[in-house]
Amino acid sequence: MTDDIRLCRTFQTAPAAVPKDDSAKYLVSGLEADGFQAPDWLVPDLEDGTAPDMKAEGLENTIDRVPEYEFPGEIWPRVEWSYEDADYREKGRNQIDQLVAELGDDIEGVVVPKVGRLEDVQRAAEVVAEAESEHGYPDNSIGLSIIVETGRAKSDLRKIAAFGAESRLTALVFGPVDYTAELGGRDLGDGRPRWDGLLEELSNEASAGDLLSIGGPFDDLFKERAGLTYYNADEYADQVEHEARLGLDGSWSLYPKQTIQANTIHMPTPAELERDVHKIERFNEAKREGTGAVTIDGQMVDEATFKNFENTVQQVRAIDDRRPAQTAERYDESLLERARELELSYQ
Amino acid sequence: MTDDIRLCRTFQTAPAAVPKDDSAKYLVSGLEADGFQAPDWLVPDLEDGTAPDMKAEGLENTIDRVPEYEFPGEIWPRVEWSYEDADYREKGRNQIDQLVAELGDDIEGVVVPKVGRLEDVQRAAEVVAEAESEHGYPDNSIGLSIIVETGRAKSDLRKIAAFGAESRLTALVFGPVDYTAELGGRDLGDGRPRWDGLLEELSNEASAGDLLSIGGPFDDLFKERAGLTYYNADEYADQVEHEARLGLDGSWSLYPKQTIQANTIHMPTPAELERDVHKIERFNEAKREGTGAVTIDGQMVDEATFKNFENTVQQVRAIDDRRPAQTAERYDESLLERARELELSYQ
Amino acid sequence: MTDDIRLCRTFQTAPAAVPKDDSAKYLVSGLEADGFQAPDWLVPDLEDGTAPDMKAEGLENTIDRVPEYEFPGEIWPRVEWSYEDADYREKGRNQIDQLVAELGDDIEGVVVPKVGRLEDVQRAAEVVAEAESEHGYPDNSIGLSIIVETGRAKSDLRKIAAFGAESRLTALVFGPVDYTAELGGRDLGDGRPRWDGLLEELSNEASAGDLLSIGGPFDDLFKERAGLTYYNADEYADQVEHEARLGLDGSWSLYPKQTIQANTIHMPTPAELERDVHKIERFNEAKREGTGAVTIDGQMVDEATFKNFENTVQQVRAIDDRRPAQTAERYDESLLERARELELSYQ
Repeated sequence: MTDDIRLCRTFQTAPAAVPKDDSAKYLVSGLEADGFQAPDWLVPDLEDGTAPDMKAEGLENTIDRVPEYEFPGEIWPRVEWSYEDADYREKGRNQIDQLVAELGDDIEGVVVPKVGRLEDVQRAAEVVAEAESEHGYPDNSIGLSIIVETGRAKSDLRKIAAFGAESRLTALVFGPVDYTAELGGRDLGDGRPRWDGLLEELSNEASAGDLLSIGGPFDDLFKERAGLTYYNADEYADQVEHEARLGLDGSWSLYPKQTIQANTIHMPTPAELERDVHKIERFNEAKREGTGAVTIDGQMVDEATFKNFENTVQQVRAIDDRRPAQTAERYDESLLERARELELSYQ
Repeated sequence: MTDDIRLCRTFQTAPAAVPKDDSAKYLVSGLEADGFQAPDWLVPDLEDGTAPDMKAEGLENTIDRVPEYEFPGEIWPRVEWSYEDADYREKGRNQIDQLVAELGDDIEGVVVPKVGRLEDVQRAAEVVAEAESEHGYPDNSIGLSIIVETGRAKSDLRKIAAFGAESRLTALVFGPVDYTAELGGRDLGDGRPRWDGLLEELSNEASAGDLLSIGGPFDDLFKERAGLTYYNADEYADQVEHEARLGLDGSWSLYPKQTIQANTIHMPTPAELERDVHKIERFNEAKREGTGAVTIDGQMVDEATFKNFENTVQQVRAIDDRRPAQTAERYDESLLERARELELSYQ
Repeated sequence: MTDDIRLCRTFQTAPAAVPKDDSAKYLVSGLEADGFQAPDWLVPDLEDGTAPDMKAEGLENTIDRVPEYEFPGEIWPRVEWSYEDADYREKGRNQIDQLVAELGDDIEGVVVPKVGRLEDVQRAAEVVAEAESEHGYPDNSIGLSIIVETGRAKSDLRKIAAFGAESRLTALVFGPVDYTAELGGRDLGDGRPRWDGLLEELSNEASAGDLLSIGGPFDDLFKERAGLTYYNADEYADQVEHEARLGLDGSWSLYPKQTIQANTIHMPTPAELERDVHKIERFNEAKREGTGAVTIDGQMVDEATFKNFENTVQQVRAIDDRRPAQTAERYDESLLERARELELSYQ
């Protein structure tokens, strides 16, 4: 069951090349991160994060550096693309081809931005399929995730997710900056709209298509007050918590501190885990004793509430499986042990 | 015109069997309710409200007790079902078959939970059709209502409601606990999300398909403060009012006091009725005098505003027709008489 | 590029006939408006704004008066229609036929209210096509805009907008009064719901179909406090700003003061224009100097952020093109000159 849970609490983009002495500085810093600073997904960014004249160097950095590290999560480079511009799609095709050729064993898939309607997403999937086959990888071994940031992609989200249910499509990631520009949204001094309708639909369609849903970047990294500039921890946490409430599986990170916060928020708190493990233990006891209906701590446990407890435990097991250092740091060993051993079956 | 208004201000579920001396206690209490405590729809619950090992007794209770009472509203038992589990669908099929066989004249239809995409809703409709025909009931005499509580059902809501426009489908009911679990939504201490996007769409699609739309249950029945535990009237009323604003036709009740509140909120206030009856009376006068455009109390009455006044009066007439004790209790006899006699035609 | 921007910051309806000595009073006042009081679109209203017994006079007023003025914006009469009533559609057909016959050179198109599903919108488009051809106008020379105010139109919005992408369909306009009545929404003392889900979708689908999106009317024109009745400037501005944030292209106006406010809000502020012109100037400099990645005033300028700056400048150019008096009044001549001369290309 845990194997089915695809983990992407954090989708951290890192520019693949920056105009510094070491142009791979940020990429390498992502690859070296550990503990809570290590994102579940690291996204070497060949698109908007890398300047137009450094794309080639960014691709080279990605191909050179990624294999040098035993990165504990998944690697998903973001390439160039545009539903409305064939030149960008040609660039994307070449980038995908080279990434699969050189890094096919190191990456889980590629992230394609600025997709349009269903047909454009299918076109991107076709490009990945061609690279996969050209370079001798098995069917569907290279994944595809997309950035939802155009009116057309949002309009076709239901169909795109349904297509995703039977394809290499893995995650739907929100891209609010492009999206707001495309719709002509305005920042009248209090920030961009949060696009709550889109977020709800993203969460729903991802669920209906068995895909992951990921929130958009938060770029007000720093605040200034009373002469001091400091990391804007509060507002980022507000955004990530909002996304977690709506059932998004993860959040976008631009920065190691954001990764710590998003990894943490998309992980049950010790109190949540203790509560839900306890409820399932009590439920299992009652089942063994043959008591039918079970009221635990004043709450009737039916199949719907049971599912919520189960979600908590399965998320912890999935993290424990892939990031044992994080669960070891966050939970008591004895609680963790109970979570690992629990029987999870309502019937 | 009033005949067309299907009334479901309250959708009250009652466990069909509970582990008490009288296992039908809550079911009977629902069947005996009168005045504002009597729900428009009483839903004997064979699904999550009844423990797994009491399902058979719950079905028996329903079949035995329902015919014993002259319940003033409609009876809609909820059966088991799941879009992702054939065993549950088989249980549902048997329950529907027995309910129609034994109670076909006493129930208006059945409520099917955890439906998935359109095809699954059509499958449930087919099961009802088979039972109906098997036991000699006329076409479409047994209704079907569904709980919208999966990503797939929400994703297909537009198609499901369009199918509903030409079928036995009667109501779309929201199921927030399962829905939140399915999407992986989180309660971070301030409750589940309200799912506003879904509620708007539920109201819209129900309207477009001539169906009823019903809100989800509110299960924080009691509050504790300063040593006292008391009924949580405020928060439930907030939820029901929110649903009423968005055009939902009714709200889910788990408890007689909730039924009183939901029945009341989904009924025009005496002030609303007085105001709208008055406006239509003035409008009708002006029409008789041949004045074309009518400004009443400073407001120009056009066809759109007229429709809003008409909604008020028709809702009261529908309640008056089926629950005369409630209208008699809520409105002055003279106001009620004016509402009954009003000519309702803009042209 | 500017030619592509269709301008409708203000959609001002004016009753085509009112029961006054001069029945065309409000229509003429709209036609004579200048400066910021002149709406981008003036909508002579033959539907709900004109009483049933004055429709013929309203049509006559429109046909007589419109050609007498050099109105600086576009003229879009609203006719009668209803997806659920063939009589209204017949009235609409006759009104469209006469408007095209007599005013085909003076109007940009017609506004059709109360449309239902896609098929009904296509039916309205067909009626316009017939009038156009009957009276010798070229294909697609007479536009069609629709009021989205029924559950069915909202349900089909995605398909309607996709149809719009390849047809004479020009704008999607929200009609909240009818919409609320159709869904059975309630005003419990704090106004109608804002229908945020619908507004987001309207903005998205208009963007995906290259259409305009326009908000609904605000009819609490006046407030009374402490014995004084005064124009309700604040609440209208709040609504228009909300619409602007969500990317709606314009707002509905019922009154010259509302037109001033909506024209102003849907126009970048001088500070916004100064900021975005400055950023593009700096970006262009950096490009000429061969610097790849550009950080301007602490913000990394990528293609997505560039698009937002570009939006600001293009909107100002479009207004400057068609309403030079307004840009002259709002911006310094030197700033305007910089906006006019800027090179707008990210590559």
